[in-house]
Amino acid sequence: MDSESWMGKAIELARENVRAGRGGPFAALVVKDGALLASGTNLVTSTNDPTAHAEIVAIREACRALGSFQLAGCEVYTTCEPCPMCMGAIYWARPARLYYAGTRADAARVGFDDAYIYEQIETPVEARAIPMTQLMREGALAAFAEWERKSDKIQY
Amino acid sequence: MDSESWMGKAIELARENVRAGRGGPFAALVVKDGALLASGTNLVTSTNDPTAHAEIVAIREACRALGSFQLAGCEVYTTCEPCPMCMGAIYWARPARLYYAGTRADAARVGFDDAYIYEQIETPVEARAIPMTQLMREGALAAFAEWERKSDKIQY
Repeated sequence: MDSESWMGKAIELARENVRAGRGGPFAALVVKDGALLASGTNLVTSTNDPTAHAEIVAIREACRALGSFQLAGCEVYTTCEPCPMCMGAIYWARPARLYYAGTRADAARVGFDDAYIYEQIETPVEARAIPMTQLMREGALAAFAEWERKSDKIQY
Repeated sequence: MDSESWMGKAIELARENVRAGRGGPFAALVVKDGALLASGTNLVTSTNDPTAHAEIVAIREACRALGSFQLAGCEVYTTCEPCPMCMGAIYWARPARLYYAGTRADAARVGFDDAYIYEQIETPVEARAIPMTQLMREGALAAFAEWERKSDKIQY
């Protein structure tokens, strides 16, 4: 299947997700070697999970299928430019390539906070809308030192 | 308990997580009305889930406990400045306040990609290290139009 066919399938899933009342108008697929590895739709309101965006659902399912925390060689198709949460998840999972349809501005126009969250993330931590306070940095450094000393750790 | 006591508890969980070999040196708590609602540690390598950062694990558990996709009135304590994925999740969950100990630069010094992913997210989509291609925007807009027409939708 070509890229347009995969994206067409993702768009159909997004529309079905709205009709079924499972969540927002978003879906994502993970494809490897020309085959569908996993799909996901937005399930935030039906599962009471604010992290259940289509990309997160699909990435978690694809990693389960592969038995790996990395999506090496995979393509991700998503019906909208990923929000910062999902973009972060994509970088941690490290697929080979991403295809997206709508933009963060398109999502904002139908009521989703994607563009606002991008703005907040580019705002200095001390000036964010959610108050963010640093304390006890030395405790975090002690945990990091313990990590550095651990000889049998699995890095990622 | 005061903020330092909660953060001290989170730091202890982060250190235990390293010793137990469950994942990276990170932990997070969600506190509401002075009581612990949920805790989470980094479980990426032990669960093969790249999204299982401490904050995501704690937010999902706290939302399950509350039966809500929002963390209204909650405080989040995390042993490190959240990565873009977790910062996005925090904005979607909308807690009242965040406390953090280490910074993205501290995390980078012990081998975690947080600072790099922040840089990538501030890079134009077409210039990112993971190739990102837009196609079929009109399909996304059709899904969004279906969402806008839906009269019984749950917005968030």
